[in-house]
Amino acid sequence: MANINSNIPEKTIERLSEYRRTLLSCLKQGITHIFSHVLAGMHGITAVQVRRDLMLIGFSSDTKKGYDVKVLIEFINSILDSENVMNVAIIGMGHLGQAITKYFNSKGLKLRIVSAFDVDPEKVGRTIDEIPCYHMDRFEEIVASMEISIAVISSPTRVAHTLVVPIINAGIKGVLNFTSAQLNFPQGIVSENFDITTILEKIAYFVKEGDEGSDKS
Amino acid sequence: MANINSNIPEKTIERLSEYRRTLLSCLKQGITHIFSHVLAGMHGITAVQVRRDLMLIGFSSDTKKGYDVKVLIEFINSILDSENVMNVAIIGMGHLGQAITKYFNSKGLKLRIVSAFDVDPEKVGRTIDEIPCYHMDRFEEIVASMEISIAVISSPTRVAHTLVVPIINAGIKGVLNFTSAQLNFPQGIVSENFDITTILEKIAYFVKEGDEGSDKS
Repeated sequence: MANINSNIPEKTIERLSEYRRTLLSCLKQGITHIFSHVLAGMHGITAVQVRRDLMLIGFSSDTKKGYDVKVLIEFINSILDSENVMNVAIIGMGHLGQAITKYFNSKGLKLRIVSAFDVDPEKVGRTIDEIPCYHMDRFEEIVASMEISIAVISSPTRVAHTLVVPIINAGIKGVLNFTSAQLNFPQGIVSENFDITTILEKIAYFVKEGDEGSDKS
Repeated sequence: MANINSNIPEKTIERLSEYRRTLLSCLKQGITHIFSHVLAGMHGITAVQVRRDLMLIGFSSDTKKGYDVKVLIEFINSILDSENVMNVAIIGMGHLGQAITKYFNSKGLKLRIVSAFDVDPEKVGRTIDEIPCYHMDRFEEIVASMEISIAVISSPTRVAHTLVVPIINAGIKGVLNFTSAQLNFPQGIVSENFDITTILEKIAYFVKEGDEGSDKS
């Protein structure tokens, strides 16, 4: 299984996470079976895409009534989830850090934000939204003792580059970077940048182009 | 120019936004020229990619000293920016909404969050982080009077689907959706979903796969 999984494209993994949330919500509404084109429609994609994604993970128990929702959820669980809960640290407990923590820990996932790091004396030593907040100096120690494998960076952009070495030294395996800083991590660390500015500037560009296009017609 | 621009891929637009921020920071440090491989290195990509992106937008004034930083910034401005500031509304002024507003409006961009919408009586009618917060019932009216073209959704996921019709009716052209809800907008509205859960689950998956891979070796 692991050999198959490691060949699954990133976009398929993202969609599996999305399918699962849709399927869980179907299950709550008492829906036991779902056709690929219905699932596809709920995600604004084609049925071919859904079937291709599920084929990639080796799921093929399509019936005349569509996919069995419960069975498909369990199959996706077996692909996406670790056996144990994976621990996450959040670096930077300002508005964004607190928003992410509240949002995320309310979801009951196999991922859990267990500690926060900051340098602000107003925050260090306190418990914010049930999460203990430590000084960044203690990052390596706490990551080891709490067995944290993922770090979320929600610090100010100007200090983000100072976090790279502590993250590497602490043995963090995955990073989600919310700042505008371009951070490069060595192989072996999975990292993803999400900068709100970039996404909004992209949307603005296509809105502008759309307007110019329609002005002409 | 417009004809060329509309063929620029999304990923190139994202990178142009990122290059610009790097170039602005170079300019602040007194750097007047930069080679494509240096710019590439700062973004963890290849020089070929940088040159291809700049070729796509028709920028070709590479010199022996590299690109002129100021000229390149102005060229990217001419591609990405509207002539006027583009107005943005934020729907859902909880922690995430407030974090996005603070983060974003401090950047001095050609995009500006000018109003917030909520249904919480504690928020409606107040000014939060210098942004007036209106009841969602007034969305259409305020979008028209403030000439808002982009909406950011940071509401709870369970109410997100109720926002689609007001957004369409108000004539919004671009949407950034931060909830887990899959929202489908008609053609003519540029939309982007960013769900923190999906991204973190993806990172967790690749961290898990990496661990299983290294266990075997």
